[in-house]
This record gives sequence, structure tokens and C-alpha cells, in this order.
Amino acid sequence: MSSLQNYKIGILGGGQLGWMMILEGRKLPLKFYVLGNPEDPACQIADKCYPLENYKEMIDESDVVTFEFEHVSEEALNYAEEKNKLLPRLNSVELKRERYKEKEFLRDHNFPVPRFEVADNGEEALRILKNDFNNLGVIKQSKGGYDGKGQYFIKEDSEKYQFIKNMNCKFVVEEFIDFDFEASIIVTRSKKEFKAFTPSFNYNEKGILIYNYGPYFNEEMVKIGEKLTKDLDYIGTMGIEFFVKENKVLINETAPRVHNTGHYTLDASFVSQFEQHLRAITDMDLGDTTFLKPFGMVNILGKSDFPKEILRIGKVYWYGKNQAKKRRKMGHINIVGKDLEDVKGKIDNIMKILYTEGIEL
Amino acid sequence: MSSLQNYKIGILGGGQLGWMMILEGRKLPLKFYVLGNPEDPACQIADKCYPLENYKEMIDESDVVTFEFEHVSEEALNYAEEKNKLLPRLNSVELKRERYKEKEFLRDHNFPVPRFEVADNGEEALRILKNDFNNLGVIKQSKGGYDGKGQYFIKEDSEKYQFIKNMNCKFVVEEFIDFDFEASIIVTRSKKEFKAFTPSFNYNEKGILIYNYGPYFNEEMVKIGEKLTKDLDYIGTMGIEFFVKENKVLINETAPRVHNTGHYTLDASFVSQFEQHLRAITDMDLGDTTFLKPFGMVNILGKSDFPKEILRIGKVYWYGKNQAKKRRKMGHINIVGKDLEDVKGKIDNIMKILYTEGIEL
Repeated sequence: MSSLQNYKIGILGGGQLGWMMILEGRKLPLKFYVLGNPEDPACQIADKCYPLENYKEMIDESDVVTFEFEHVSEEALNYAEEKNKLLPRLNSVELKRERYKEKEFLRDHNFPVPRFEVADNGEEALRILKNDFNNLGVIKQSKGGYDGKGQYFIKEDSEKYQFIKNMNCKFVVEEFIDFDFEASIIVTRSKKEFKAFTPSFNYNEKGILIYNYGPYFNEEMVKIGEKLTKDLDYIGTMGIEFFVKENKVLINETAPRVHNTGHYTLDASFVSQFEQHLRAITDMDLGDTTFLKPFGMVNILGKSDFPKEILRIGKVYWYGKNQAKKRRKMGHINIVGKDLEDVKGKIDNIMKILYTEGIEL
Repeated sequence: MSSLQNYKIGILGGGQLGWMMILEGRKLPLKFYVLGNPEDPACQIADKCYPLENYKEMIDESDVVTFEFEHVSEEALNYAEEKNKLLPRLNSVELKRERYKEKEFLRDHNFPVPRFEVADNGEEALRILKNDFNNLGVIKQSKGGYDGKGQYFIKEDSEKYQFIKNMNCKFVVEEFIDFDFEASIIVTRSKKEFKAFTPSFNYNEKGILIYNYGPYFNEEMVKIGEKLTKDLDYIGTMGIEFFVKENKVLINETAPRVHNTGHYTLDASFVSQFEQHLRAITDMDLGDTTFLKPFGMVNILGKSDFPKEILRIGKVYWYGKNQAKKRRKMGHINIVGKDLEDVKGKIDNIMKILYTEGIEL
């Protein structure tokens, strides 16, 4: 018989990823404790919500601790690791604390990544860009980058970016990849098995995901996911974003958690990325990940409400955030279709209804 | 823009059907108020749980009121109807208050039903059985029958059933249908549209559903669902159970609510019967009901826990009831498969794991 009854899952972070983890986990006899603010989506449906300063109490009361966002309280992450409760473990989070660490780890482990160099400050970054990249590339702050923040795409007129010279922080300088398209894969590893969801085509604007769709079959991505989770001895769901150019893949970024490009799995896979994550960290068997039908997802960005007619086309997931802000993810829409053309047509329709006057980013 | 924000759904009854309604409705900006006991599954995840005696307060505070079980407090149903908030309306519930009313309604509206007669008491019921049915048939109490309770299948040795003679209540006496199989359809009607889910094959034992699977295509069932919901001016999701014999269908029973045989829609349809019900009663557009993959569902009856290895095969929905009882629905398992054979194989496996020593009913 199961030993799941009232097993307590601690989630660090109260955002929509934690919210969907709880929505998906409620069908199982699990309890959810969230470290966040009372108005956070996940806190509103949690069994208990703890303010940030009470992280020790929350971790002590949980059987296993996970996170829905890697840039949460370092103290909480460290404490959960110390108590041997953190899954995925701290080693995966540490790679994300500084961008160069992730890049170097991937390169050292022979994963395909864009050519890059690390600079200790802005002056060095600009010098590297000039000397080694012919003034064409991407300068990324090593710390604190998320959803496109702190990233400078320098295609021409590098003069404009001279302000970087005065920035006294670590940078990654990277070749600019003129990709054919972006794609990602969601994978999950438990103590005893590995499973991958079907990759998707992603469309980003200004570093933020607008929509994605699939299926997109790519065995190399599956292999990379398998090796990467094994190399990290990773437990849980992970998202890996790629650039694809002439059928070659390069890892752009990894996320040691459930991922925006995997929201489609709520409706187009038997088991979602969220349930799969919970299965992995509670040592249950993983579920079937084969896609059920061609799928798509559109993010609802910066809106305080959604047009009802969208329900004619798709399913709305409304996160219930207390305030809309520019670029803020307020919800998303999932669709399925009979083939990729059908799916793309539906995405076009949703984009027209949702962003009548374009997206403000 | 939508006017759904914080729209308040009142649910009469706190069982698993209300629980799944809330699980499925949480993705939308709806609030859920439940009339039930605090330990009821739906109450545990509701925004507010009201004790039975506070039904007026609960109904006054809700924008629309629905029910997850038709045999709930008559006062509450009547009051919600009076306040013009009940959906589906009282006319559908009234048919279920006495079995003969439903039977007569269906026959009067030219729906295919088994031959039946109504008896005012037990003595008359036995006389009708003898005179008109050659002592072979089913005697059903008109009131209070649910999950096989109060139903007597008289195939031989009618002497054994002489105790019915002393029962002073209304009965329906019905011909015994030696069906090839049982099946059901889940349909939904809103103010402006009608949609049907794919029917399923059902396996019942002692009046209780053990498992079902599909798809089973049957256009006549779709037509019956469309006409029936129209004749009742019905708003919401409805389950209709059939006997099928030599490809002819006869209505066995209807349920003016989401239904146990529609649990598969949580995983094998784009929109579930629960979300569809909420869409109908809040006047949203209905969603796509086409099945995504061959599907199956197994009820977990009378168990206080579930064997973890079942997760290898399916998804578990554990209702979190406080006590297991014989015949009590404690949870269910959804599966999908590549074809009906695959699905049936998985159901067999689950049955073996779950009911190692047979089902106690």
C-alpha cells in the first residue's frame, strides 16, 4: 500500500509554477506547504502558507522540499539541502546562481553550447566582444538574469552599449546564434527512471516566451536531457531550452524546475510536468509522457483579465495574481489541434484576440 | 473582457463530484462555496464550506448554484430555484426524486426505455410482476434508490422476494433486460450550444460501477442526449446510462449532474465533464469534447489506501474521504492506451493489483 497519505511537500516560491504543482497534486493524498506571500497564487491554494522568515519551520514540517523558482531565498535552499530534504538538490540550483557556472558545467561535460567567454567586469566583456567575437554577440550579466533581463544583444552599433563598461560585475560574452528556431524539452528523472516529454517549438520575444507548440521530435534533445540529469544526479522535472540551426541543437539555458514551455503537458500529455515532478520527488513511478494530440500554449502577459471568447478555442489557466504588470505572466491558454497547421491557426487566432493592439514588452 | 473574476459557484453536496468540479475549476477565476460537512472532499478545497443549516446564506452569497448529487437537501434545492440561481433547474431534479417520474417522463417523450409499470405498494408490485412480467423482472423502489440500493432483480424463485409484499411504498416494476453490455454518454448543454463526450462501455456489479472504457461510438446516444437536454431545457452536464442489446439502446437511468462514467474526461478529453459543466452554468463557451486517446477508468471501492504500483499504469484520483466503507467510492484510476485492447489489458492489471482478493460489494 502507498505511504503517500498526507505526505508533505514544501514548495519554495508562491508563483504560478507552484500553483500548478498544487492543482495537479491535489488528486493525490499530498499536503502542500508554500513559502511565499499570502497573495501569491500558490499560497492561495496551499494547505499552509509560510512567510519568508519562517523558512526553517516550513522546511522542518515538510517531508520533502522543492522549489518552483530557483532564485528564491538562498537561506531556505541551503537549509533544506542541509536537512537532506531538497529535491532537486542544491548542485542544480548553484549552477543557476551565476550564469557562467551553468555555461562552464555544460561545456565541461561536452554538451553543445554556443561559444562563450567569461568576463570579470563590463570593460573586459566589451573587450572580449571586440577581440574574440568581432563586436557581434550577446553580453549577459552572470547574476540575476531572468526572462531576458540583463541581456544585451549586440548586432551592430556596439557604441550604444558602452555603458556596460562601467558595470562592475561578472558577464558571459557569447556568440550570437542566428537560429532557425528555438525549441525546448521537458524531462524528468527519479531515483530509478528517466522520462522525456515531447519537445516543442518556442517563440520568444525580448527574452520572454510568447507561445510554443508541437510536437517537435528530436532524439538528440532527449539524449541531452538524459545525460544532463544523470550528470547532475538530478531528481525532478527540468526544462532545457535550445537554439536549433540547420538541425543542430545548442543548449541556450536550463531550468532546474517545471518550465513555462511545459504547460502544454497539462492538456496534451497523460501526466503533466507538474505531476511528474511530484512523482519524482516522492519516489513514485513516473507516468506516461507521450503526447496525446498536437498542442499549443499562449502566455497571457500583462493583462488584468482575459477575453471570454478565448474559451471557444482553448482552456484558460488564470493564475489569480493580484496585479497586472507589463511582461508579467498572468495566465496561459492551452490548445490542442488535429495537426501543426491547425494548432498554429488557433495560436494566431488567440494572439489576435488577446493582443489586439500588439504585446507591450 | 470576461466577467468571470471571482464569480461565485455554490455547490450543494461535498462529495467527490464537487471535489473534481473544484479541482477542474480552480484554473479559472472562480470561487467555490460548498454546502457540506467540513470533512467532505469538496469542503476541504472549497473557498468556503457551509453547514447544511446555513443553506440560505450560502445560496445568497453565490452567483449560481449547482449540485454534485441530486439527493441533497430539498430545502436548499428549492430555495436556490426560488432565487433563480439553480442550474440545472429543479425540473431535472424533480424527475429524480421519484424513479417513476423519470421513467414516465422518458416514455412520454418517446425515449427508448425498458417496459415498466408503476405500483403503489409492494403487494401491487408483486402482482404486476406476476401478471404482466411472468414473474421475471426488476422491482425498484421509487424513492431513495442509488448505487443499486432498493433494487430487486427477480430472475427465478420469486418466493424469496415475498417480503416486498409488506413494503408500503411506490415501486417501479420493469422488464429484465438481458443486455449485451451497458454504456453511457456524458453530454452538456449551455444556453447556446450542445456538446457530447464520446460514450463508454461500462461494467457494473451489484448496481455499482466498477470500471468503464472507450471510445464507443454511438450516434443514437448523442441524439438522445441532445433531445433530452432540450426537452428539459437543461443547463449543465448530464450522464445517461443505457442498456445495449443487439445494437439497440434503452435508457436505464439519467443523472442530472457530472457522472462517474465521465471521469475519463479528466485525462482523455481536452475539456473535462467538470470544466464543461462549469462553462455551461456560467454561460461560457463549451470546450472541445473529442477524445484524445482510448481511455479507461477503474473505481477504488472500499479501500483506505491504494497500492503505489498502480501509478506505473495510471493516474490516481484520491478523494480524501475520512473513512473507508464497503462499496464506498474512495478514489479512481484513469488510464489511456493505444487501442481498446491495450486499455482492457491495463484495466485487468489494475483490477488484479487493486482487488487481489476480489471486490467486496
